[in-house]
Amino acid sequence: MNRRAFHRHLLATLAAFTVPPRSLLAAAQSQDPRVNGDRLGGHLRELARFGRNDLGGITRVAYSDEDREARAYVMELMRAAELDVRVDTAGNIIGRRSGRDATLPPLMTGSHTDSVPEGGNYDGQVGSLGAIEVAHTLAEAGIALRHPLEVVIFQNEENGKVGAKAMRGEDPAHYLDLMTHSGRTVRDGIAFIGGDPARVREAQRAPGSIAACVELHIEQGAMLETAAIDIGVVQGIVGIKRWNVVVDGFANHAGTTPMDRRQDALLAAARLIDAVHRIARALPGRHVATVGVVRAEPGAPNVIPGRATLTLEIRDLEMTTIDALHDRMLAAATDIGSETGTRFELTQIYRTEPASADARVQDIIEAAAGRLGHTTLRLPSGAGHDAQEIAQLAPMGMIFVPSRGGISHSAEEYSAPTWITNGANVLLHTLLALDRAL
Amino acid sequence: MNRRAFHRHLLATLAAFTVPPRSLLAAAQSQDPRVNGDRLGGHLRELARFGRNDLGGITRVAYSDEDREARAYVMELMRAAELDVRVDTAGNIIGRRSGRDATLPPLMTGSHTDSVPEGGNYDGQVGSLGAIEVAHTLAEAGIALRHPLEVVIFQNEENGKVGAKAMRGEDPAHYLDLMTHSGRTVRDGIAFIGGDPARVREAQRAPGSIAACVELHIEQGAMLETAAIDIGVVQGIVGIKRWNVVVDGFANHAGTTPMDRRQDALLAAARLIDAVHRIARALPGRHVATVGVVRAEPGAPNVIPGRATLTLEIRDLEMTTIDALHDRMLAAATDIGSETGTRFELTQIYRTEPASADARVQDIIEAAAGRLGHTTLRLPSGAGHDAQEIAQLAPMGMIFVPSRGGISHSAEEYSAPTWITNGANVLLHTLLALDRAL
Repeated sequence: MNRRAFHRHLLATLAAFTVPPRSLLAAAQSQDPRVNGDRLGGHLRELARFGRNDLGGITRVAYSDEDREARAYVMELMRAAELDVRVDTAGNIIGRRSGRDATLPPLMTGSHTDSVPEGGNYDGQVGSLGAIEVAHTLAEAGIALRHPLEVVIFQNEENGKVGAKAMRGEDPAHYLDLMTHSGRTVRDGIAFIGGDPARVREAQRAPGSIAACVELHIEQGAMLETAAIDIGVVQGIVGIKRWNVVVDGFANHAGTTPMDRRQDALLAAARLIDAVHRIARALPGRHVATVGVVRAEPGAPNVIPGRATLTLEIRDLEMTTIDALHDRMLAAATDIGSETGTRFELTQIYRTEPASADARVQDIIEAAAGRLGHTTLRLPSGAGHDAQEIAQLAPMGMIFVPSRGGISHSAEEYSAPTWITNGANVLLHTLLALDRAL
Repeated sequence: MNRRAFHRHLLATLAAFTVPPRSLLAAAQSQDPRVNGDRLGGHLRELARFGRNDLGGITRVAYSDEDREARAYVMELMRAAELDVRVDTAGNIIGRRSGRDATLPPLMTGSHTDSVPEGGNYDGQVGSLGAIEVAHTLAEAGIALRHPLEVVIFQNEENGKVGAKAMRGEDPAHYLDLMTHSGRTVRDGIAFIGGDPARVREAQRAPGSIAACVELHIEQGAMLETAAIDIGVVQGIVGIKRWNVVVDGFANHAGTTPMDRRQDALLAAARLIDAVHRIARALPGRHVATVGVVRAEPGAPNVIPGRATLTLEIRDLEMTTIDALHDRMLAAATDIGSETGTRFELTQIYRTEPASADARVQDIIEAAAGRLGHTTLRLPSGAGHDAQEIAQLAPMGMIFVPSRGGISHSAEEYSAPTWITNGANVLLHTLLALDRAL
């Protein structure tokens, strides 16, 4: 039954019975609940106050004062939603609602409230406050799930998914000493937000100890908005490989070295950047390849660059596609090196495995959205998310809502209130369905 | 008569006469003098001690302690060459040898002894010590020119041809407050090396007050070495225009933005870099075009660059050629902008007029080299030189000697002792011929 059908049904019921409408509404809500979109919108506006910047977005990097203040606000909202709140040793905020069967593992939902420097008001925040709104709705409707429910605000998503990695069991030596945008190391940052860096391993969850994890998030692409589709059912989170590329030519005087005697490392780098784009576009699929950083040395207007360095990043749901693209780009680099008298060296510097969304969870999200009258599209997530870490512990799914122009990590980030409410309702009904099915 | 012919002639003369060989040598030297190449080589090796770096080159930036020490050494050499030494208010070292006719303006020759950071042992130094060696040879041979001779060590060539500009009459407000690699401003630097920044205008020479100016220099290209030619007769010093190029696209998430929805400023910049090279090579001529600096913003491996900035430099003997190349590159930028959804903006940031070498001075250099048995090639100077400033006051010429691989501004800079001796002899005979002709 979609929402309009439900309302018609409700009016018919009201006409047929003499019981007071208020109790009838509560009864309907307990059977087929809906989130309070106005309340959710209000909470998002309130949250946007913490770290607001001149651009109308936020700068609320993990472990900053603004981050800690926003977390305090979020914990208030959790308590208002009748959740039992704690901060785990890794600094994740966990709001728990008991289930009817204490032997069952929890259903998990949540996202993050930290931002990039000069970020927007939706990335992470929609999924965080959406999850709290779902818990609030369950509490108001008096719905007791079979499973416990855990709403998690994962700490420091933007600077390395630290909280989610700690929960997944990443070796703390890999992240505790990293410096963050806050000016604090992760270690000091965890202490600053109420965790315990010395006991961070205690935040780890065992595989199988979570029934399922569903994260609501803005799309950060423009596929849903462009196709005017309400809900994205995420197929998985792409794998990523990154390389440092060093091009060695020969630095020389830009005035005295004839054009046909140059070994211009930047010219070679420029041809590779073009080749990366052409090779990626020539292969059908949803993979992406990006050069985001470039530098020429010595870097003077009157010196032919002897060295150029750049980054190459390729993302896809399949590592084999990433490797095939890389091989073609490497072959192009070799040809360009021959043409230009330069030499390319690629060094892999980063690798993230793709995380598949659970097939059954995808089906349940799609069915829940359909029942609520929403159109859906299955799509990969090109961005990393907290849920991809939890995918190693539990069946994982993600619900995407459209974002205008696909803009993210910017003050211009925007998702309409209706889109957000739709997403939160799909999250609510996905959790209800998972609670029945698992 | 070339050198070998001269020696045959000398031996024949020695065999025919009974006068002591020593005085006969002196007599021959006074008629057809030669520089002392061994002495010149020794002085170059000594000079290389000041500011020597680990690479085997020198770091002797203008106004550093090393610069000042090297200048003191050079002044000793000048005195040994019987020159009257003074430092003008701009800090140029001027060694003067009187002429027979006190009413004539001086012939000028010289170069610079400052270097770029991590420079080599030949750029500037060959022309400086070569000029002193010429004066020393004249003194030893007892040759009195009609014109006075001024050997000038121009101060701070590498960081803006400051000394030569002061002599030409550049407004001191344009350079006195500039910061230099020494950590001193030009103002403080001039005081440091014995000039008087408050009276720097007094270093200015009037147009017509110099009979001619000839500078000996290493080629800094590989044209002479590649063609195995002894002496380059410089046609002129190229004009230069430089632009800042800003490419505006749209920064976006490198994971979530499909390849066909990007406005990648770095991709557009890369295509322009390639186009600059192709356009320059497509037009016949000795012009050069270079992109030496590039930056992508925000500059992260996982963000599609929203902005790229680069420099474009074009050099040629004709400003019209520079402008024609620029127009073609601008047209290419417009096309690339349309293809990539980006916008280019070029802002001219630097312009130097070309300086033609005087036709008569070129002929005299060529004739002097030919008479000494050396092969010659007329060629433009792609690099700037002190002499180009003096070209606005007097007939100017430059003598190039080969440099290995065209490498300059590097410890690997190298010109063989024979090449340098050849150049100094051509300078000597050019000055002798100019002294007769002017």
